[in-house]
Amino acid sequence: MEDDFSQWYTDVVKQAELVDYGQVRGTMIIRPYGFAIWENIRDVLDKKFKETGHTNVAFPLFIPESLLQKEKDHVEGFAPEVAWVTHGGDEELVERLAVRPTSEVLFCDYYSKNIHSYRDLPKLYNQWGNVVRWEKTTRPFLRSSEFHWQEGHTAHATDEEASQETERMLSIYADVVEKYLAIPVLKGRKTDKEKFAGAKYTLTIESLMHDGKALQSGTSHHFGTGFAEAFDITYLDENGDSQYVHQTSWGLSTRIMGALIMVHGDNHGLVIPPRIAPTQAMIVPIAQHKEGVLDKTYHLRDQLKDLVRVDIDASDKMPGWKFNEYEMKGIPVRIEMGPKDIEKEQVVLVRRDTGKKEFVILAELPTRLPALLEEVQTNLYNRAKAHLLEKTNVATNMDEFATILEEQTGFIKAMWCGDIACEEKIKEDTLATSRCIPFEQEKIADTCVCCGKEAKELVYWAKAY
Amino acid sequence: MEDDFSQWYTDVVKQAELVDYGQVRGTMIIRPYGFAIWENIRDVLDKKFKETGHTNVAFPLFIPESLLQKEKDHVEGFAPEVAWVTHGGDEELVERLAVRPTSEVLFCDYYSKNIHSYRDLPKLYNQWGNVVRWEKTTRPFLRSSEFHWQEGHTAHATDEEASQETERMLSIYADVVEKYLAIPVLKGRKTDKEKFAGAKYTLTIESLMHDGKALQSGTSHHFGTGFAEAFDITYLDENGDSQYVHQTSWGLSTRIMGALIMVHGDNHGLVIPPRIAPTQAMIVPIAQHKEGVLDKTYHLRDQLKDLVRVDIDASDKMPGWKFNEYEMKGIPVRIEMGPKDIEKEQVVLVRRDTGKKEFVILAELPTRLPALLEEVQTNLYNRAKAHLLEKTNVATNMDEFATILEEQTGFIKAMWCGDIACEEKIKEDTLATSRCIPFEQEKIADTCVCCGKEAKELVYWAKAY
Repeated sequence: MEDDFSQWYTDVVKQAELVDYGQVRGTMIIRPYGFAIWENIRDVLDKKFKETGHTNVAFPLFIPESLLQKEKDHVEGFAPEVAWVTHGGDEELVERLAVRPTSEVLFCDYYSKNIHSYRDLPKLYNQWGNVVRWEKTTRPFLRSSEFHWQEGHTAHATDEEASQETERMLSIYADVVEKYLAIPVLKGRKTDKEKFAGAKYTLTIESLMHDGKALQSGTSHHFGTGFAEAFDITYLDENGDSQYVHQTSWGLSTRIMGALIMVHGDNHGLVIPPRIAPTQAMIVPIAQHKEGVLDKTYHLRDQLKDLVRVDIDASDKMPGWKFNEYEMKGIPVRIEMGPKDIEKEQVVLVRRDTGKKEFVILAELPTRLPALLEEVQTNLYNRAKAHLLEKTNVATNMDEFATILEEQTGFIKAMWCGDIACEEKIKEDTLATSRCIPFEQEKIADTCVCCGKEAKELVYWAKAY
Repeated sequence: MEDDFSQWYTDVVKQAELVDYGQVRGTMIIRPYGFAIWENIRDVLDKKFKETGHTNVAFPLFIPESLLQKEKDHVEGFAPEVAWVTHGGDEELVERLAVRPTSEVLFCDYYSKNIHSYRDLPKLYNQWGNVVRWEKTTRPFLRSSEFHWQEGHTAHATDEEASQETERMLSIYADVVEKYLAIPVLKGRKTDKEKFAGAKYTLTIESLMHDGKALQSGTSHHFGTGFAEAFDITYLDENGDSQYVHQTSWGLSTRIMGALIMVHGDNHGLVIPPRIAPTQAMIVPIAQHKEGVLDKTYHLRDQLKDLVRVDIDASDKMPGWKFNEYEMKGIPVRIEMGPKDIEKEQVVLVRRDTGKKEFVILAELPTRLPALLEEVQTNLYNRAKAHLLEKTNVATNMDEFATILEEQTGFIKAMWCGDIACEEKIKEDTLATSRCIPFEQEKIADTCVCCGKEAKELVYWAKAY
């Protein structure tokens, strides 16, 4: 992993049986273990969306070309990577259909027909689905031609309400990614250069991978009335006056699986945080051919199964082989039980994150195991947080900026004048892009790191996936 | 509904806010209420799939044309209704990509690479997703260019195991459709003419709509080794000999939403069975401007919400307007509470299925309401079962066959010689198709209903959606 992070990533993705490559360039098959992790992330998010009043819907996969073209910035941003359907059966279509790269225009078209009065607002819709972006260079989870995600699309009576929604959804993303995926994030706003095509502004959570590169991990966009004007989405307010709606959209995708791998993984493979691990504890019988061992371990599984997500591997593979497999898959805790343990009425618990072993008497296991899982969860977060802080450095001029990137990558905190020219120059000279203008501002210098003119705000920069 | 069933269907689908039409011909937008029902059906099925050892996966949306062509019967069946992607961005693709109409070939390709030994079997995969079939005439849920479904794809060591799987999954479909959707079904096998393109045989559940037309409601296919031979999917058995795997696939789609509407609906709109109703009971405050009414009804909601899926409509619309809306949406039970009820410490319960009212004292509501919901569930099933039996008639010759169809449609039980020529002639003369060869065979005559030659088996026939 230290020698060739990119190869390590590809190996882990394959060997932990998360994905396989699809036949079509840049597509992936999400295998049972990979999909089970994604299902857990999805379920946590879905619950939070519903608790905050959102409802799920399913909009079509195809977008007529004319509809996609209605909002100019939006189509410019997405048209280059659209997959086009031109034929249905033997028949050539009169109009090409885009396979949705994102669904703003479909929701806008619907809202323009279904919103009439202030009583119809807010509309708080979400959908889980697949989208297609015809990417040139692809990597599983990180950048794939087809990916899975949720996209929320909302419409509000006022700009203020839309702002609150944009922030609220970003907070939910940050909360889930930090508390469940144990990945610390920076919260902030994208620069105009990096915002979503068609948005007034974009909020983002940014995380830092083990190799010091950043990953955009979830975004929430405020559209103002831009789309409403392009699609004529209006409502009659309480005074009977026609008003444009204020919209948002927000998305989190299977890309986050890439973050999970690259934040917590190590040379033994994946490390999955307990709260989203499909299997939290794997029982491996030792000397299972000896009398009573299998019975006892199955009994143990039955005792634990309402407390934690536990499984047992009673196959005829060698224990060492099983240890390697479940380390590769990042199962948080391994439970070993053999004849000696049975005699002493104990088990051996082995943490995946530290490798530390402990002996626990059976009577204490129902309290010790859940507690240990929480310790693993906390440790993973703290370790990742320490890494993020360690890899975050301050630059006040471009020499410092370049030196940091050469020596260790990571986030660079630097002041910016607000001019897109400086942002472009930094990217050209260093390959680092602006990741976000953090909500928590500090004034670390008076002048822009690039041009030396008066600084407007603090920006986090990094090389990114 | 009696005058124009087709128009009634379209009206209910729109007015109950289940779907809206998409911009692209034959596509649909599944709105919050429609999707919430589908989510409940999905959750019940998903749980049963997992309990029987299946795991979810996500395979790609696109299929290279050459891959689709590998199994001859399969491609002939599906090619005419494939939507083709020919361009990615500005670039013309070297090979056209089919938007998946079903995913057999993708799973086969994967299995051919990932199955090596008998230890790798069985593979019990399922995926939830969208597929596209470019249909000429479309109707929401019943026949749409894009629809949502689950498709299970399994591989087994023996023909016997694959047979058991095919039957097991059909049983799960029958069980869920009967017990949760309250729709009685016929279980049987499709004739060779009606089986899935590429299958050895297809099992089906068939239900009967209010207008007497049948609807195929879920199918489970046994592929034998047909796909395995086309895709070279082999494993080494315990003796080290190479063997072809035996495969199945099975699917249930949003089409079942059409059955739900057309089996239980009436002139007031939808009737949703309690076990899958997103809202099982809707509280409508009466004279809600009077002091204490809103407080009491909200309090009631809070008391009931852990027992049943309950909601309250405290909007400023008139109660009569609310009654109509929730009747249209088919909410199983309405709870009315006004000043007089509060005084008497009671509520009024109104069943959606029969319209019957009852007064229940508050102290008894936590036991009475769940019991009433079960009564509604049972009544819906019994009513639909009685309808199915009433509309099932026996024909021993084509005159009887034609007379039944003219007078009242429904299922026709008739003996068949097994010759596809008779099946085709029946369809040509009457528009009825063979729905299934029921598992429960009876010998109602010695001769084929069509040709008069020796009968082989009993078949259910019907006009169908």
